[in-house]
Amino acid sequence: MAMAPSVTPVQTIEHLTIKTPAKCFEKMGNLKLKDGDKIERVLATFRVLIADLCEQFNGGHPGSAMGMAAIGLALFKYTMKFSPSNAQFFNRDRFLLSNGHTCLFQYTFLHLLGYKNMTWEQLKTYHSDHYDSFCPGHPEIEHEGIEVTTGPLGQGVANAVGLAMATKHLGARYNRPSYPVVNNTTFCILGDACLQEGVALEAIQLAGHWKLNNLVLIYDNNQITCDGTVDLCNTEDVNKKMEACGFDVIDIEDGCFDVYGIAEALIKARASTEKPTFINIRTIIGIGSRRAGDALAHGVNFGAEDVGNIKRCFGMDADAHFIISDETYEFFREVKPRGIKLEEDWNAMVKEYATKYPDVYEEFQARVEGRMTADWTQLIPKKEDFPTAPTASRKSAGAVCNPLASGLQNMMVGTADLSPSVNMIWKGKVDFQHPDLKTGCGINGDYTGRYIHWGIREHAMASISNGLAAFSKGTILPATSSFFMFYIYAAPGIRMGALQRLQQIHIATHDSIGTGEDGPTHQPVELANLYRAMPNLLYIRPADSEETAGAFITALNAKNTPSMISLSRQVLPQYPQHSSRDGVQRGAYVFIDEPAADVTLIGVGAEMKFAVDTRRVLAAKYNIKARVVSFPCQRVFDKQPVDYRRKVLAWDSKLPRVVIEAYSPQGWERYADAGYSMHRFGHSLPGAVAYKYFGFDEEVIAPRVVEIVELVRKHGIESIRGEFRDLNETRQQGHYEY
Amino acid sequence: MAMAPSVTPVQTIEHLTIKTPAKCFEKMGNLKLKDGDKIERVLATFRVLIADLCEQFNGGHPGSAMGMAAIGLALFKYTMKFSPSNAQFFNRDRFLLSNGHTCLFQYTFLHLLGYKNMTWEQLKTYHSDHYDSFCPGHPEIEHEGIEVTTGPLGQGVANAVGLAMATKHLGARYNRPSYPVVNNTTFCILGDACLQEGVALEAIQLAGHWKLNNLVLIYDNNQITCDGTVDLCNTEDVNKKMEACGFDVIDIEDGCFDVYGIAEALIKARASTEKPTFINIRTIIGIGSRRAGDALAHGVNFGAEDVGNIKRCFGMDADAHFIISDETYEFFREVKPRGIKLEEDWNAMVKEYATKYPDVYEEFQARVEGRMTADWTQLIPKKEDFPTAPTASRKSAGAVCNPLASGLQNMMVGTADLSPSVNMIWKGKVDFQHPDLKTGCGINGDYTGRYIHWGIREHAMASISNGLAAFSKGTILPATSSFFMFYIYAAPGIRMGALQRLQQIHIATHDSIGTGEDGPTHQPVELANLYRAMPNLLYIRPADSEETAGAFITALNAKNTPSMISLSRQVLPQYPQHSSRDGVQRGAYVFIDEPAADVTLIGVGAEMKFAVDTRRVLAAKYNIKARVVSFPCQRVFDKQPVDYRRKVLAWDSKLPRVVIEAYSPQGWERYADAGYSMHRFGHSLPGAVAYKYFGFDEEVIAPRVVEIVELVRKHGIESIRGEFRDLNETRQQGHYEY
Repeated sequence: MAMAPSVTPVQTIEHLTIKTPAKCFEKMGNLKLKDGDKIERVLATFRVLIADLCEQFNGGHPGSAMGMAAIGLALFKYTMKFSPSNAQFFNRDRFLLSNGHTCLFQYTFLHLLGYKNMTWEQLKTYHSDHYDSFCPGHPEIEHEGIEVTTGPLGQGVANAVGLAMATKHLGARYNRPSYPVVNNTTFCILGDACLQEGVALEAIQLAGHWKLNNLVLIYDNNQITCDGTVDLCNTEDVNKKMEACGFDVIDIEDGCFDVYGIAEALIKARASTEKPTFINIRTIIGIGSRRAGDALAHGVNFGAEDVGNIKRCFGMDADAHFIISDETYEFFREVKPRGIKLEEDWNAMVKEYATKYPDVYEEFQARVEGRMTADWTQLIPKKEDFPTAPTASRKSAGAVCNPLASGLQNMMVGTADLSPSVNMIWKGKVDFQHPDLKTGCGINGDYTGRYIHWGIREHAMASISNGLAAFSKGTILPATSSFFMFYIYAAPGIRMGALQRLQQIHIATHDSIGTGEDGPTHQPVELANLYRAMPNLLYIRPADSEETAGAFITALNAKNTPSMISLSRQVLPQYPQHSSRDGVQRGAYVFIDEPAADVTLIGVGAEMKFAVDTRRVLAAKYNIKARVVSFPCQRVFDKQPVDYRRKVLAWDSKLPRVVIEAYSPQGWERYADAGYSMHRFGHSLPGAVAYKYFGFDEEVIAPRVVEIVELVRKHGIESIRGEFRDLNETRQQGHYEY
Repeated sequence: MAMAPSVTPVQTIEHLTIKTPAKCFEKMGNLKLKDGDKIERVLATFRVLIADLCEQFNGGHPGSAMGMAAIGLALFKYTMKFSPSNAQFFNRDRFLLSNGHTCLFQYTFLHLLGYKNMTWEQLKTYHSDHYDSFCPGHPEIEHEGIEVTTGPLGQGVANAVGLAMATKHLGARYNRPSYPVVNNTTFCILGDACLQEGVALEAIQLAGHWKLNNLVLIYDNNQITCDGTVDLCNTEDVNKKMEACGFDVIDIEDGCFDVYGIAEALIKARASTEKPTFINIRTIIGIGSRRAGDALAHGVNFGAEDVGNIKRCFGMDADAHFIISDETYEFFREVKPRGIKLEEDWNAMVKEYATKYPDVYEEFQARVEGRMTADWTQLIPKKEDFPTAPTASRKSAGAVCNPLASGLQNMMVGTADLSPSVNMIWKGKVDFQHPDLKTGCGINGDYTGRYIHWGIREHAMASISNGLAAFSKGTILPATSSFFMFYIYAAPGIRMGALQRLQQIHIATHDSIGTGEDGPTHQPVELANLYRAMPNLLYIRPADSEETAGAFITALNAKNTPSMISLSRQVLPQYPQHSSRDGVQRGAYVFIDEPAADVTLIGVGAEMKFAVDTRRVLAAKYNIKARVVSFPCQRVFDKQPVDYRRKVLAWDSKLPRVVIEAYSPQGWERYADAGYSMHRFGHSLPGAVAYKYFGFDEEVIAPRVVEIVELVRKHGIESIRGEFRDLNETRQQGHYEY
C-alpha cells in the first residue's frame, strides 16, 4: 500500500530565542543570535545578495525580499513538498507571491534550491536589459517554478484560493482510501497591500466560506507601503477580521529570524483540519539597512554605502559582492533529492491506484495530462437541435454549455450570483461547497461539485478562476458567468488570464442596451472596446443559437487563451438559413449574399436583427441591395488570410460597409466605412424601447445607409474612406458635451 | 446665537413588541401587531403599493423594497434632516441606496414625502416605456432627491464614505464654535451583495480608519440574493468583521416591523462620537408574499394571485389597486414643514456666521455655490516656466497640479499609495486624517487636510471620489492618482463618475510600455481603448510639460465630466517650439508643419518622441517630408468643427496618416490610415529597452512609413484607405496566436 509522502519535520531547527530588535539600525548592530548560527548565516547571505542584486542595476524592490528571508527558509527548506527537478510535479505544494514586486525573493530561492533554469547568470539579469531574462520585474508563469504571474496587488491571493479549490475538488473526485493522489497545500505570501485590494478581500470571504483548510496565507506584515507606514491608511484589526472570515490565525512576532516558529506555524497550518490559516508574521522591511523599517526600503536600491552597512550589520565583508557561500548551497542541498523522492513515491502510489481503480484512473490521467474527459465535439447541439422561434442568446448559451458542463469533468462553471439569469445550470449539477454546509435554501453540495456560487464578486470570480486554470494546464476549464456590464469589475482578473494565456470561458449575458429597464448602469456600451483591444482574449458576440454554438467551439479550441462570449438578455430572431458555426470560427463571414449589392451591412450579435431588417427596408423602399456580413469576433477574423478577409468585406467590389452595433464604434473603423453606433450611455427603458429610443430601428437606419450609398454612387468609394462616418445621431448628443 | 437644527426625536413611536414571524407565509398570516396601528397600516400600504407597481409592468425588484419599509419609516420620518421642498439643501443628511435595484423603495418614499417631481403619475412610470420617467430601473443622480446613481453593487457604500468625508472635511474647515454650518450625516442602505463586492470592503476599511462617525451603514440583512440564501456563498461573521474594521455595530432583530428600534439605532448612530456605525437589520424579502424569504421575491413581480395574498396578509382589500390612504400621506405630512424649518434655521445661522466670520464665509459661500476658490488660470505655470531638459510628464503634472492643489481650497488630491511616484505632494499639504491619529512615520493630519492616502485601493479611490464630487456640484474637485495600469481596478468607479458627469481629475502615471522593468502586468497597452470609448470621459495623453498644462486646463474647464491625464514614468523631450496648451484644448493640432509634406505622422503622449525622430530620419535618409500632428485627446478633437479636423489631418492634401502609439490601435483607424502600435502585452525590460524590443525606434519605424508613402505615390491615397495597416511587426506575434 502506498503512503502519502511526508517531509522531514522541523525538529532539527533549534529555536532562535533572540527577538528582533526595534526597527532602527543602531540596535540591530548589537544583535547577537544565540543559536542557529548556520541559519543566521544563510539569512545574512540571502539578504546581502538581494541588496547586491538591486544595487547592480540601480533599482528593484529589495526591502521586502530581505525582510521575508526567514519565511523563505521555513517554507522551502522545512515545510513545502515540491521537487526542484520537476517544477510541474502534479501534486506539488503550490507557492505564490502575491506581493509580486518582491520577486527577487523567489528568484533567489529558485536558484538556491537548484531549479535548472535559474542559474547564477540568470539571477543576475533581474532588472537588466537582457531580452530573455527569467527574472522579470514580477514573477511570470512562463518561467520554471512560477505558478502564476503576479504583480497587480491582491491577485495572487485570489489565485491561491483557486489553486486550493482545485486541490479540494480534484482530491474529492479522485482520492481513494490510502491513495491521496491530490492532496497538496497552497502557500501564498501577501503584503500589506494585498489586504487592502478588494479582490483579495472577496477571495478571503470565499476561502473562509469553503473552509479551504489546504490554503495558507502568509502575511508579510512589515507595516510599510510606498507612502509610509500602513497606519496612514489602514488601522483595522486584521487578525480579528480574518477570524470573522473563517480563518485560523497564528501570530509570529519575530518574523525576521524566527525560522523555527514560522516553520512550526506553517506545518501546523498544513495539518489544519477545519479552516484555512492566516499567519501574521511581523517582519522588518530592508532589515540591516539604515532604511530598515522605512518606506525608502521598498522600491529602490540602497546605494553602495548602505549596502556596506547591511553587510557589516550581518557580519559580512562590506567589500565583497555577490557572495554565496558553499554552506548556503549546502543548506538547501537536501531539498532536491527529497523532491525526487516525493515524486517517486507519488508515481508509485499512482501506479498502484491505476491497478486498483482503473476506471477512475483513466479519467484522472486525462486530467493530469490536460485532455478533455469526453469528446466534446459530440456534446454540442447541432443546428437542427435549436428551436427556430426567437430565443435569447443567453438561453442558447445554456443549451450549448450545459451538455458540455454535464459531460466534461474538467469544466467548472460558476456565476456571480446570477443563476436564474445566465442559464448555466445543467441537470444533476452539484455545487462546489464544503460537505458540512447546509444552506437555508436547501441547495447543498460538496467538494466534488462543479458549479460555483461566486456570490456578488465578479473580480474574485475571474481571479480565482485564473488559479483554477493555472493548477495544471488543461486540468480544469473554468467557465464564469455574469452580466457583461459587470465584467468591468472583473477586468483586472480577465486581463491576468489573457496575459497568462489561461483557457477559460467567460459567459457574459445581458449585453448592449437591449438589457433594458436596468438602465445605463447595466447597459454596456464601451466595455467591448476593452476586451476587443485586450491581447489574446477572444471577445465573441454570436447572433443566434447556431452562432452561439460556434462561439463555444471557438472557445474550446482556443487552448491558449480565454474567451468571452457576449450574449443577449432579450430574444433574438434565429437565422438557421444564414448563420454558421463554421463562420464564427473565422471571426466574420458572409451572412446574406447579394450578387449585385450596393452596400455591405455588418451585423453583430444581438444587433444582427437591425442589419437584416435594414436590408429588407433598403430593398423594399429604396431599391438598394445590401449584403450582410456577420462579425462575431474581430481577433479571430484578423487571423484569417487577407484574401478571405477581403472577400468577406467585398473589398474588390468597392462597396461601402456599414456596421450596426449598439456600442461605442472605436475599432470598427478598420472594417467599415460608417457605423450606426452608440456615443453615449444608455437609458432605462424596456429593451426594445431602449433600442428605438436611440434610433435602432430599420426605418431610421435605412435612410442613413441610403445617404452613404448615394455619396458613393456620386463621388466613388474614395469619397467616404479614411473618415469614418457616424450615422446615428438619434439622442447621441452626450458624445460632444463636457 | 444660532443653534444647530434638531429634529423631533423618536419618543412618540410606541415600541412594536411583536417579533417578525418565521419566514413562511402561513405564520405571517397570524401576525397581530399589538401597538402602533398607524405604523402597521402605513407599512402595509407601502408594501402593497410596491407589489402593485411591479405587477403593473410585469417586472422590477419588489422584494427588498417591501422588506425595507420599516427602515424607510425610521429614516425619513423619524431620523433624517432634510427638506423635501429643496432637495439640494446644502447641509441635508444624505441618503444613498447602494442596493439600487430596490429603487422603488426610494421613489415611493420621495412621493409620500412630497418631492415635487415625484408625482403619482411619475411613480407609475417605473419600468414603463415612458421616455422621460423619473423612475429608472436604478436611482439616477439627475432626478430630484437622488444623491448618486447606484446599481452596480458596492458602489453606493463607497459613495457614502465620500459624502461622509466631504462633511468631515468641510466641517473641519468651515465650522466655528456654535456655527456648525456643515454637520450632516450620511445614511446608506446596503444589501447582502454590497458586503461581498470588493469596492465596498475597501471603502469600509477606510471609513473605519478615518473614524467617520457621521456615516451610518444600514444593512438590509434579508439573507437572500439571486441565487438563493446568502449562505450559499457567504458565512462570515459580519458583525465581528465590521468591528474589526472600526465600526460600532448595532443589531436589529425585527427589521420588518420594529420602526421604533430602527429609529432608535439610527439616532444613536448619528450621535455616535467615535466611529462609523453599522446597523445590521434582519428583514424578510417579499414580506407578505408566498415567496417571502425566498430568492423568487428578488427580481420579478409576484403575479396577480400572490399580490392578492400580500394584500390579504396585511389586512387590505385584495381587489383594490394602487391604494394610498389619506392616513398614509398624513403620516408623512410633518416632514416637509420640518425640512423648511431646518433650512430656515440653517440660513439664519449662516447669515450670522457671515457677519461674524466674513473671511471664512466668503470662501464657504464659494464652496456652496461650487465656484473655484481662487483664479486657477493664474496658478498654472506658463510655458517658459518649464525646464527645457527632458522631463517625465508625471513630473510635469506635479509642476502643474501642485500649485493648483495648493491654491484651490476645493481640490482634494489623493493617491493609491504612490506618493513617491506620482509627484502630487505640494508644499504645506496636510493629510486628510482623523486628528487623533499618530502614524508610525510621523505624517499625521486632520480633517481639514486635502491630501488623501487611499491605500492600495484604486477602486475605492475612484468610487469614494464620486461621493466627494457628488456632495454638491463643484464644492469638491477630487483628483486621484495611481499608475495608469491600475486604473483598470478603478474602472467601475471611473465609469460611474463619467455616467454621472462628476468633474474629477484622474492622474494616471506610468503609461505605456515605457514604464519598463515592472513588466507586462504594469504596462498598459489596451486600457486606453476603454477610456477613449467611455462616454463623457476625457482621456488626455500630453507629450510634454506644455501639453500637460493644456491637459489640466482642459480638465478644469470640463465642469460636467471627469478627465484622465495619462503620463509617463520616463523622461520625455520637451518641445517648447512646437507644443501648445491651446492645441491640447482642441484635442489635436499641427505640431510640426511641413508645407510640401509626403505624410502626416500622428504623435501621442510619451510616444511623440518617435514621431519627431522618425520625421528626422525620413528627411535625412529617405528624402521624405513629414508633418507631425500631436493628438492628446480624441473626444475633444471630435468636438471640433469639421473644417478644423480636416485641416489638422491634412484631408485635402490626401496625405497618408500614420499614428505612432505603443497601445492597441483600435479607434485610431478613424484618424489614420496606418498605425505603428502594440498588438500584444509588453515585456519586462528597462523602459527605453522595452521600446526598442518592440520596434519603437525611429530607424525601424521610418522604413515602414516609407512603404506607405511609396504605395500612395504609386497607387494614390485611395489604395490604402479603408483597410487600416498595422506597420509594427516587431515581436507582435502574440496578436494572432490562440
